[in-house]
Amino acid sequence: MMHDVYIHDIGTALGGITERNDAATLGQSEAECQRLADKIGIHSRPIAAPDQYTSDLARAATEALLAQTVVPTESVGALLVCTQTPDHLIPGVSSRLHGQLGFPQDCFVLDINQGCSGFVVGCQVIANWLRTAGGNGILVNADTYSKLIRRGDLTTRALFGDAAAATLYSTQRKGLRLLDCRSYADGSGYDAFVARGSALRTDTGTPNGICMDGPGILNFALRKVPEAITLTLDAHGLRLTQLHAVLFHQANSFMVGQLARKLKLATEQVPQNCMNLGNTVSASIPLLLKEQMNGLRRGDLVMAVGFGVGLSWGVTLLEYVGND
Amino acid sequence: MMHDVYIHDIGTALGGITERNDAATLGQSEAECQRLADKIGIHSRPIAAPDQYTSDLARAATEALLAQTVVPTESVGALLVCTQTPDHLIPGVSSRLHGQLGFPQDCFVLDINQGCSGFVVGCQVIANWLRTAGGNGILVNADTYSKLIRRGDLTTRALFGDAAAATLYSTQRKGLRLLDCRSYADGSGYDAFVARGSALRTDTGTPNGICMDGPGILNFALRKVPEAITLTLDAHGLRLTQLHAVLFHQANSFMVGQLARKLKLATEQVPQNCMNLGNTVSASIPLLLKEQMNGLRRGDLVMAVGFGVGLSWGVTLLEYVGND
Repeated sequence: MMHDVYIHDIGTALGGITERNDAATLGQSEAECQRLADKIGIHSRPIAAPDQYTSDLARAATEALLAQTVVPTESVGALLVCTQTPDHLIPGVSSRLHGQLGFPQDCFVLDINQGCSGFVVGCQVIANWLRTAGGNGILVNADTYSKLIRRGDLTTRALFGDAAAATLYSTQRKGLRLLDCRSYADGSGYDAFVARGSALRTDTGTPNGICMDGPGILNFALRKVPEAITLTLDAHGLRLTQLHAVLFHQANSFMVGQLARKLKLATEQVPQNCMNLGNTVSASIPLLLKEQMNGLRRGDLVMAVGFGVGLSWGVTLLEYVGND
Repeated sequence: MMHDVYIHDIGTALGGITERNDAATLGQSEAECQRLADKIGIHSRPIAAPDQYTSDLARAATEALLAQTVVPTESVGALLVCTQTPDHLIPGVSSRLHGQLGFPQDCFVLDINQGCSGFVVGCQVIANWLRTAGGNGILVNADTYSKLIRRGDLTTRALFGDAAAATLYSTQRKGLRLLDCRSYADGSGYDAFVARGSALRTDTGTPNGICMDGPGILNFALRKVPEAITLTLDAHGLRLTQLHAVLFHQANSFMVGQLARKLKLATEQVPQNCMNLGNTVSASIPLLLKEQMNGLRRGDLVMAVGFGVGLSWGVTLLEYVGND
């Protein structure tokens, strides 16, 4: 028996420090910072405090979710944490969270490693689990990229924010029904976004920390993302105009704008929230979805679109079925 | 439609250096080393060379698998790498492997983080994928724990080996049919096995590297593993004597012996191969399964049992259905 899978609710948490993209912070002229902030559409970002780790953000988001829903921890059959910035390599953040919040021992507990496609890929893993097992599951998307960013590299520093989002999935009909979820990969683009000197490989000849080929990723996204969206729509006999909203991963406002333009989407179909969040990696889509959920009406179709490190990209298609 | 899932074949690769548990290596008296090696049943272990990383072992194991099977890379719909010692935190080892070996872009590519339960947990993820999608998938279990082990800590150094195993899963009937797969977690035991100072948390007051509470893990395994085995058998109306083999994670010979004794398993039901491999983390079960596959007859039941870091534990029940 295959169950349908729904998203019920989302809890969120932000890094404890607000970092502004201004002259005092970035060490450039005010005019230069203004130009940069305007182009990327990011004026400030939440950043983890020095003693705040991914597990802390993951825990806060999960506690927020549990507080605002009626789901007891005992009913959670799967607890996934998607992160690329764990506290430790061994064990995973999900183990820590499992112990801290007292989830049951027969819970499926796992860390998955994925970046800006991590909401879509995580959705695939948890939905595949629930389709067969039924019940409730939580996917936490949480990262603290700021700890891997070279402070002098403004092309990445001005972009990324630290945050977490905990999404409650269930086979009980409510909220957003998962209609489709598909992801793609092109590992030949591994070097387009790498945290050098992280984990175990010794990278010589390059500075340690996150190295990003921004133009390469923009070019890849403009080629691959519209293709994946079209494939998904075609599979369901849908047109872009029938989508209530397309929730792009909030890489930055410039990139989202380019994608929207290329697809000829109406401005009101493409909500954005990166101005004071930045690019929060795999948490960005659920942070945006949480803001949008209250405004949805029964039958509204929402598409979530992730793309980035790996390279990887993917699409999730959702339909709002009401909240009762 | 839910597909049945089968394990067809396994490719393997070992770290390029052989490290012996002898006086010259461990810096203890020969008598002391002999006593230790005899107790844990581990006399030598493959260790990754300084320039050999998890992705290198993962690639070698996957190439071995592809060479010995008839599965073309284009037919692989899922590529999972289970590791706790990736080359980089960002991106995952699976991305690198995907690019190096030219898997297709519509492949589901993901790193999962799990230790000695990683064969069982990985099996759950890939089986859930194949049950709905059908087709072929590869799960690679690969680690280089030696790079995180403190050389002076003989309680861990004498145990762990570096290796990789790539397992071909398919919905085509052949090899071992997956009858059941279940995993458990107790995150309150997070601290029983931690790689301190790995990834992003600053751990003060303790040396960096792998810290293991050996007696605590033995005690946990002796309590929880038999319980999980019994639950699984009961669910299928089976008795222990009906199992052709129980493939325990090769933590060490002492621990496997204790588990076998507690369960009153016959010696011939409990194959071991850690003497010259050591504890190869999540690769240990597929390394052992590969050795056993040729000796199986149609109808033979095999149980794979993982346990360790997290804490976590799990059971996979397989039935050999023949090779034609």
